[in-house]
Amino acid sequence: MVCTVYLTEKPDLNDPILIEGLPGIGFVANIATLHLINELKAPMFGEIRSSSFQDFAVTSGNGKARYPTNELYYHKARDNEERDLIILYGNTQALTTIGQYELCGKILDTAQDLDCHNIITLGGLRREGKITEPPKLYCAASDPQTLKQALDLGAQIIEGQIYGIAGLLIGLSPLWNIQGFCLLAETPGYYADAAAAREVLTAANKILHLKADMTRLDKAAETTHEILKSFGMTSQPTEEKEKEKEHYTWRI
Amino acid sequence: MVCTVYLTEKPDLNDPILIEGLPGIGFVANIATLHLINELKAPMFGEIRSSSFQDFAVTSGNGKARYPTNELYYHKARDNEERDLIILYGNTQALTTIGQYELCGKILDTAQDLDCHNIITLGGLRREGKITEPPKLYCAASDPQTLKQALDLGAQIIEGQIYGIAGLLIGLSPLWNIQGFCLLAETPGYYADAAAAREVLTAANKILHLKADMTRLDKAAETTHEILKSFGMTSQPTEEKEKEKEHYTWRI
Amino acid sequence: MVCTVYLTEKPDLNDPILIEGLPGIGFVANIATLHLINELKAPMFGEIRSSSFQDFAVTSGNGKARYPTNELYYHKARDNEERDLIILYGNTQALTTIGQYELCGKILDTAQDLDCHNIITLGGLRREGKITEPPKLYCAASDPQTLKQALDLGAQIIEGQIYGIAGLLIGLSPLWNIQGFCLLAETPGYYADAAAAREVLTAANKILHLKADMTRLDKAAETTHEILKSFGMTSQPTEEKEKEKEHYTWRI
Amino acid sequence: MVCTVYLTEKPDLNDPILIEGLPGIGFVANIATLHLINELKAPMFGEIRSSSFQDFAVTSGNGKARYPTNELYYHKARDNEERDLIILYGNTQALTTIGQYELCGKILDTAQDLDCHNIITLGGLRREGKITEPPKLYCAASDPQTLKQALDLGAQIIEGQIYGIAGLLIGLSPLWNIQGFCLLAETPGYYADAAAAREVLTAANKILHLKADMTRLDKAAETTHEILKSFGMTSQPTEEKEKEKEHYTWRI
Repeated sequence: MVCTVYLTEKPDLNDPILIEGLPGIGFVANIATLHLINELKAPMFGEIRSSSFQDFAVTSGNGKARYPTNELYYHKARDNEERDLIILYGNTQALTTIGQYELCGKILDTAQDLDCHNIITLGGLRREGKITEPPKLYCAASDPQTLKQALDLGAQIIEGQIYGIAGLLIGLSPLWNIQGFCLLAETPGYYADAAAAREVLTAANKILHLKADMTRLDKAAETTHEILKSFGMTSQPTEEKEKEKEHYTWRI
Repeated sequence: MVCTVYLTEKPDLNDPILIEGLPGIGFVANIATLHLINELKAPMFGEIRSSSFQDFAVTSGNGKARYPTNELYYHKARDNEERDLIILYGNTQALTTIGQYELCGKILDTAQDLDCHNIITLGGLRREGKITEPPKLYCAASDPQTLKQALDLGAQIIEGQIYGIAGLLIGLSPLWNIQGFCLLAETPGYYADAAAAREVLTAANKILHLKADMTRLDKAAETTHEILKSFGMTSQPTEEKEKEKEHYTWRI
Repeated sequence: MVCTVYLTEKPDLNDPILIEGLPGIGFVANIATLHLINELKAPMFGEIRSSSFQDFAVTSGNGKARYPTNELYYHKARDNEERDLIILYGNTQALTTIGQYELCGKILDTAQDLDCHNIITLGGLRREGKITEPPKLYCAASDPQTLKQALDLGAQIIEGQIYGIAGLLIGLSPLWNIQGFCLLAETPGYYADAAAAREVLTAANKILHLKADMTRLDKAAETTHEILKSFGMTSQPTEEKEKEKEHYTWRI
Repeated sequence: MVCTVYLTEKPDLNDPILIEGLPGIGFVANIATLHLINELKAPMFGEIRSSSFQDFAVTSGNGKARYPTNELYYHKARDNEERDLIILYGNTQALTTIGQYELCGKILDTAQDLDCHNIITLGGLRREGKITEPPKLYCAASDPQTLKQALDLGAQIIEGQIYGIAGLLIGLSPLWNIQGFCLLAETPGYYADAAAAREVLTAANKILHLKADMTRLDKAAETTHEILKSFGMTSQPTEEKEKEKEHYTWRI
């Protein structure tokens, strides 16, 4: 299987923006994109499977066993302001470094095929101690012009590493002639953080101009929390920190 | 070698059900399928080898060094009630996520080639504290119709992850146009649990209608215990729990 | 690179026996085969390189940086009693399960090409506490007939796992139509154990009938100790035990 | 992606020496080669990408998200004394053994294509306690003749392992008909060590005869420190030691 993209249709999109929403710190991107999919009634048009995803099945209350997967949704602009979207949603990132590179490659291949030239990755930036209200936004970008877009949304420049797909996708995007920025909100990081998700989505929407009701975002956070519970992933700050610490160990 | 299926014959089976019986929690599936193979005198018709299996040899009292392997057996219905079976038995699952996906793919390929449309995976569900007598059954399925079959056997819906081959096989089966359910019995999980094995097998037999004597199942449990001893795997609850804990650590 | 065999010549051998001598517990096989190579003045005829070997260079007193490698030597019988030999010597085994399977496959391919039908793997069997003098011998084999050969050398049957190449090679050998046994001597395991090496070699020689002086085996043990020192591998019983413990953790 | 070399041009070089400067202990090679690139205004002519590099993006003060990469620079001799150079600089080595072997293979392929027959790898040799002033130099080489070159620079022979790309590249180089030595300076190892970098570079320059000002090397050390900070890699002696300890655990 390795990593394969299965498209059920190839939507006809006009200069779409890809929004990345895989699970990560605070599940910020996950909540935000689930909300978008719900609000926009975005149709699913594809799936990405990888043998670098978790090797278990997950069930929810209905007893249906699901394998871990990433899903692709699209949205056609409903007026002159809205932008066409590709939304990447899922319940896992790849488990290995090689798997993450392979996944990014497949996502960028797919984006390129759909005439996409811009990517926004969303995420959380873990902060110890008290988070300001509203949480501060941070950004990085593939190039100065795209960075300016992100700064104009009220984000400030992040220094250091941006872990996972949110960072790697932006880092690699220029190799596919795609520009992108990541938008991260401060979060304690160990629960499904609706406030952080609202912050990144509201900011991104200054570019997307989507007519989407942000009040129901709490529902997406609750659903995400339920999904996480079935993944055994609620309130585990200790393990996550250890995982994070691992990233600091370089091979030298 | 990677992962390869070697068939010594291609049995002519009529809508067979595949029963998965690889080692897992409480060795429930392992005991149950070993018992079936013994009782039904099921002939072995194939073997699956993988370089993701353990890289050691195992010997038993007779001094024969064996490499880790999975084996395929079949059973032809002996009357109008019994179902044709494919039985997957073995002494290991794959050691890596990629290896598990590859193994599942090979199993499902083989099932499809043998005109199999239904899979039952067996297993244990680890429970701390006292297990009810008889142990409770849990299930999940690839689809609502198959779930109903499992619920009719007296199992209740499991929520959360189903680790290993028992979960992944059911999760992935629809991609091969195969339906399936898993049937898990409560177990403390750190020894070869004959009671749990009897419970899942007795329940599954309401569908399979096999004329198999369940009284001798204790013998299969003993044999399994002996095999495990040669694998150095008896009474190691601590390591198993740590392994399990690992599964909870997501990469995010 | 992955795993590749480079032969500088294809020696013309008559029903040779392959002796495996890669580093393992107590470096028993390593010492024994180094001694054979020295005593028999066996010419090197090939090398096996693998990207699953250690990724560092080793230097000894002469400042030459060497990459980790396995080497192939041969010996032509010098009289009617001696057997032709293929000797596998090296400074590492593969670091991963997949790497070990690949290495075994390459070794068995090479053996088959050289008309070899018999393998003897040597090794140590770690024992806590006092080792009897001389150390006891243990064995396992690919088949009953070959097992008898090993038992006739004074070894008793080992039950349980045989780790590493010494076990896997014997386990897999029948798939290449090769028969083999492993011969393990008790050892505390954390230093280059000349006594254990002498014991396995003397026993094996009842089959090989080599006119080799065993008195100089201590020199091979010293050289092995020197090599190990350059690998930073002398007296580290703790880490080795942890590694060993790891092997007991199954994925279930 | 795996591991791929992208050349923007193929420079016409005369018997160039390849200088390896990837991050390692004390970032000695990293500082030294960054200084050379700055001083010589060496043009970049290629990039090596690998899915065995870190799977994150790094940003610095300017907000540009960069993926981990290795870069190739060249220098044309400006007089009869200077040597043509290929400089390998980067912000990571590969994370896995297989990735390191693959990376070395690609580097040596590229060197061979550019008519390079000599490699110098630079690095630090971690020493506990007080480092002598100036730090002592150590070396190892692919062959006796090249070793003599290194000894003539005032280095003494290192015994034991040389970890990472600095060792493996020298160890493997003869397989590409390339000769090389490594030059390591004593260092406490857990910060960007300008003194050690100056020492190896000054020594190597006795061969390279580069007209390069060593006074500005502190600037390269500062830049390296800044880059490391953005990688979260300043002052983490504990983790590094643990990593190092891991290397001592052999699979046996």
